[in-house]
Amino acid sequence: MIETRAINGVVPVVLTPFTEDESIDVPALERVVEFVVSKPIGGMWVLGTGSEDMNLTFDKRLEVARVVSRVNAGRKPLILGAGFYALEESLSFMEQTADMEVDGYHVMPYHPLLSQDRLKWLYETLADAASKPLWMYTSGNWSAQLNINLLVELKKHPNIAGIKYSNVNAVLAGKVCAMAEPEFQVVTAVASQHLASLVMGSKAHTSSLGSALPEPMIQIYDLFQAGDMSGALKAQRKLNKFLSIFASCTKKDNFIQAADEKYVMSLRGLCEPRVSSYYRESTGEEREAIRAGLRELGLVEGEVWEWTEV
Amino acid sequence: MIETRAINGVVPVVLTPFTEDESIDVPALERVVEFVVSKPIGGMWVLGTGSEDMNLTFDKRLEVARVVSRVNAGRKPLILGAGFYALEESLSFMEQTADMEVDGYHVMPYHPLLSQDRLKWLYETLADAASKPLWMYTSGNWSAQLNINLLVELKKHPNIAGIKYSNVNAVLAGKVCAMAEPEFQVVTAVASQHLASLVMGSKAHTSSLGSALPEPMIQIYDLFQAGDMSGALKAQRKLNKFLSIFASCTKKDNFIQAADEKYVMSLRGLCEPRVSSYYRESTGEEREAIRAGLRELGLVEGEVWEWTEV
Amino acid sequence: MIETRAINGVVPVVLTPFTEDESIDVPALERVVEFVVSKPIGGMWVLGTGSEDMNLTFDKRLEVARVVSRVNAGRKPLILGAGFYALEESLSFMEQTADMEVDGYHVMPYHPLLSQDRLKWLYETLADAASKPLWMYTSGNWSAQLNINLLVELKKHPNIAGIKYSNVNAVLAGKVCAMAEPEFQVVTAVASQHLASLVMGSKAHTSSLGSALPEPMIQIYDLFQAGDMSGALKAQRKLNKFLSIFASCTKKDNFIQAADEKYVMSLRGLCEPRVSSYYRESTGEEREAIRAGLRELGLVEGEVWEWTEV
Amino acid sequence: MIETRAINGVVPVVLTPFTEDESIDVPALERVVEFVVSKPIGGMWVLGTGSEDMNLTFDKRLEVARVVSRVNAGRKPLILGAGFYALEESLSFMEQTADMEVDGYHVMPYHPLLSQDRLKWLYETLADAASKPLWMYTSGNWSAQLNINLLVELKKHPNIAGIKYSNVNAVLAGKVCAMAEPEFQVVTAVASQHLASLVMGSKAHTSSLGSALPEPMIQIYDLFQAGDMSGALKAQRKLNKFLSIFASCTKKDNFIQAADEKYVMSLRGLCEPRVSSYYRESTGEEREAIRAGLRELGLVEGEVWEWTEV
Repeated sequence: MIETRAINGVVPVVLTPFTEDESIDVPALERVVEFVVSKPIGGMWVLGTGSEDMNLTFDKRLEVARVVSRVNAGRKPLILGAGFYALEESLSFMEQTADMEVDGYHVMPYHPLLSQDRLKWLYETLADAASKPLWMYTSGNWSAQLNINLLVELKKHPNIAGIKYSNVNAVLAGKVCAMAEPEFQVVTAVASQHLASLVMGSKAHTSSLGSALPEPMIQIYDLFQAGDMSGALKAQRKLNKFLSIFASCTKKDNFIQAADEKYVMSLRGLCEPRVSSYYRESTGEEREAIRAGLRELGLVEGEVWEWTEV
Repeated sequence: MIETRAINGVVPVVLTPFTEDESIDVPALERVVEFVVSKPIGGMWVLGTGSEDMNLTFDKRLEVARVVSRVNAGRKPLILGAGFYALEESLSFMEQTADMEVDGYHVMPYHPLLSQDRLKWLYETLADAASKPLWMYTSGNWSAQLNINLLVELKKHPNIAGIKYSNVNAVLAGKVCAMAEPEFQVVTAVASQHLASLVMGSKAHTSSLGSALPEPMIQIYDLFQAGDMSGALKAQRKLNKFLSIFASCTKKDNFIQAADEKYVMSLRGLCEPRVSSYYRESTGEEREAIRAGLRELGLVEGEVWEWTEV
Repeated sequence: MIETRAINGVVPVVLTPFTEDESIDVPALERVVEFVVSKPIGGMWVLGTGSEDMNLTFDKRLEVARVVSRVNAGRKPLILGAGFYALEESLSFMEQTADMEVDGYHVMPYHPLLSQDRLKWLYETLADAASKPLWMYTSGNWSAQLNINLLVELKKHPNIAGIKYSNVNAVLAGKVCAMAEPEFQVVTAVASQHLASLVMGSKAHTSSLGSALPEPMIQIYDLFQAGDMSGALKAQRKLNKFLSIFASCTKKDNFIQAADEKYVMSLRGLCEPRVSSYYRESTGEEREAIRAGLRELGLVEGEVWEWTEV
Repeated sequence: MIETRAINGVVPVVLTPFTEDESIDVPALERVVEFVVSKPIGGMWVLGTGSEDMNLTFDKRLEVARVVSRVNAGRKPLILGAGFYALEESLSFMEQTADMEVDGYHVMPYHPLLSQDRLKWLYETLADAASKPLWMYTSGNWSAQLNINLLVELKKHPNIAGIKYSNVNAVLAGKVCAMAEPEFQVVTAVASQHLASLVMGSKAHTSSLGSALPEPMIQIYDLFQAGDMSGALKAQRKLNKFLSIFASCTKKDNFIQAADEKYVMSLRGLCEPRVSSYYRESTGEEREAIRAGLRELGLVEGEVWEWTEV
């Protein structure tokens, strides 16, 4: 039977800082981990899509895993990404990180064309091999879709601990949330859907925004927990207004928001606003728009920009 | 400036009862209207997709409009469907119903391939011609999609009163809910998303289920209004469990749930469980499954089946 | 057993000319029919999507049917559209046109959400009721999709004569073409795919362009029949270059090309370049681009513009 | 200016044989290369999707590249796959294979969510870095879509030699075929569309079937070249009938047909019918169906199965 810590609350996707030559910026990554660990978060999602995982070589991912697990040192639940297109590499990555202090692995099925039967085989093979609990990971945009029926089957596996289910389809997300149990955790995603996900019963919500701006996400979570629905809705709408700025920045080109999120992180003294190869950085104009939005949201300029409750 | 009654709460889509020869069953329709008007509903959505509107001739739709508006007699806000594929028929229908006591018209753009520019022209033309306030009506399944930018434009029209926005895409639905104002009402849909919609700020939620089982919908609304979120979630999940029975009955063939909903209505003494031509009726086996689900949900068998709070 | 004339060659979709008040322009429609009948075409497709069928009332469609069948007087195979969203109207239309001289009816299943089982029921019901052979009609854009398995079933019906299969998916189109037999005719569509369709075994190819410019379509057909493949490819590419002009005119807004095709028809003295309500007419700039393209294609200006073999 | 050999005719995708422990089966791969080189093919497509490229580690792909280029020794044009999800790996692979005897590289953009602008940047970066001509490679199923406008831009790059365009959308495929020039080669795909592609002007057609059964593909090509259209159509339909057997075997689960194609190759003494990890092998029943189909197609059983012209 799986023994795995319960993940409740906001779960930042840990972004990957880079040096000028696109190596992993280790000191910056250490700062990012310390930053998120210092907040009342539910856990950490490491090497997810927002971390630019698939544009990183095997060795770079190993380095990220090493740094994050070392700095966290078990303080927060840490789910580590082992998603490669080639199954052999996922297995090998899990083997080479087996001694690290992580709570579990997540794997996204990047092959877009396998049948549900083969996806079942894939997850069972991974779960059998993993020395830590396995999390499924699916997205309406990036990966093969995991049907509800398939999830019902896979949730029975003794080493499958949960799923991160990222899908704007509210009916599907609601069904998956309803599958949650202490031994099958469901983590939702999409920052603008944080409150709606909590209402549907989600206990934890991941977001790459959590590496840059965990505060408004945590605020929504706290207001919801306190039963202040109108406050929570107000906070969510304020956040969504800010997110609409992101929607017209690098997201249009990169799909992920890492470039803009890292720009916010650079303002907060966490890392340089660099992204890996085929993604582009934000422009001066975009940065100006983001700074204006940040002020309205409650991040104010000082030595470094910091969050002020509003 | 539009003056139109505010619609708050559950809004049943009024289903269309038929006689054996597929004529409108007028006495049954009168019963259905009296039934929903007797409940604490927010309004009525007449001749929507769940009413089998597009499988009804112009004359049959006129008859439905006449009966429903006469029986309701202004007691509840009533939005009447004037959606035809041919614009000329929508205009003509609005003209021939101009003297009836209705609060507004809704029109779905059935042409699936018009550009946003032409859809803008279409709604402006309809709104200019309508003697009552016009509601836009869009669905992720049936109709052309109305982009958010288009809605921002159309909402300015002095005779456009609101929109019924039915889409499982939670991000889009959230954006549309955020556009609501006293002079631009947003009505959401999809019964399994009732609570999530309320949380996103929706004031009114339509459902064809409202003609058969308004009670659980109203219960969720009331619990949400009273701030009892865990009660509301429990009620929503109970309802969703019942809806999953519908998902494996006639919905698989008909897409709409009218056949099963009318079967429930027949149990309650409201109408025969008949549907129009290309839709199929529920089978004996399906009806058995539905009756079992109804008992769990709180509809219990007596002379007619009736709702018992649980 | 069905007895129906074989349709071989180019099949113009007969466009619907309008007077200034959007009535059917009867003299113009007569001219259009005479024009296409005077060409070596394989047949006529009347009241198709390109004819703006769904934006026409029942009575206007009756008038179109009356005029076209009267003028054609059996000279060319004529397949008449009876596609309405409401089944009752399709049945009624077939009844009221039963005495006209037409070779068969075509019906597109406009309801986008019926299951394959219900579509089977729908076509069988129509075929049983029709006094003339029935043609199925499906499009990758407008209508419900008819799966290959469904077609295999429906093709057995004694009163189903064929199908117009319009789909840019070449694999599906190839499979449907391979189903053709003397008693189950397959008509393809999409002007830019004329040659590819012939190669896949299609015997007849419909196009709304056939009402405006049957000549280049017929030229491709003739070259293919004569075994001149490189000539046919050259002619097809020339035509495609012209069609790329259409792609950036009213098609972007209307989806159908009727506005631009009617502009070409107006140059040839056939009808006014008017379209029904929610479609828009071509602009001055668009018309200029079209005229330039026509000259290159071989339509040259005289008293009226006429085709010159090139 | 690029100097690259013209590729005309059938282009087998070279499948990857495996040993029992899923290593590259070098002797079998040598046999496969000798087999295809011995046929009148237009070239070889190495490490494509049908070669299970994305399920192979970097090192295994290097080994495949080494073997195939060594055995071919320049006899046929050879385009080598360098498609990885991480750009750094594509660049590194091109560097480490720079001394091998290959005619060019192909790269598929596996990231499904990059904008056209970023895809442009990606291909320009690859083309600038490549020591051999670069081929674009896109599929309607696997990868990001490359719009026609983007192709128009990229085709100008001095080190971009062509594109493999695999899409069942006949309108798009036709447009891309029309872009072909001596300095921008267009290779099409999908075995069932071989003839249709040739008719649209394609000069070369790739298929994973070419590793197992190049003969019927070459037959279609030859008949088309000889101007025997009805013979070519007959041969294509015969092949399509055989392919419909594949459609109901492992393709349903694996999407690629490699398992079934390797079974055919095993009959011909070329390799074992093994596939890599998450793909499944064909069952006994499937193999029986394939053998029956092969006999009809013209592959007859001897010491090994061999092709007999029919």
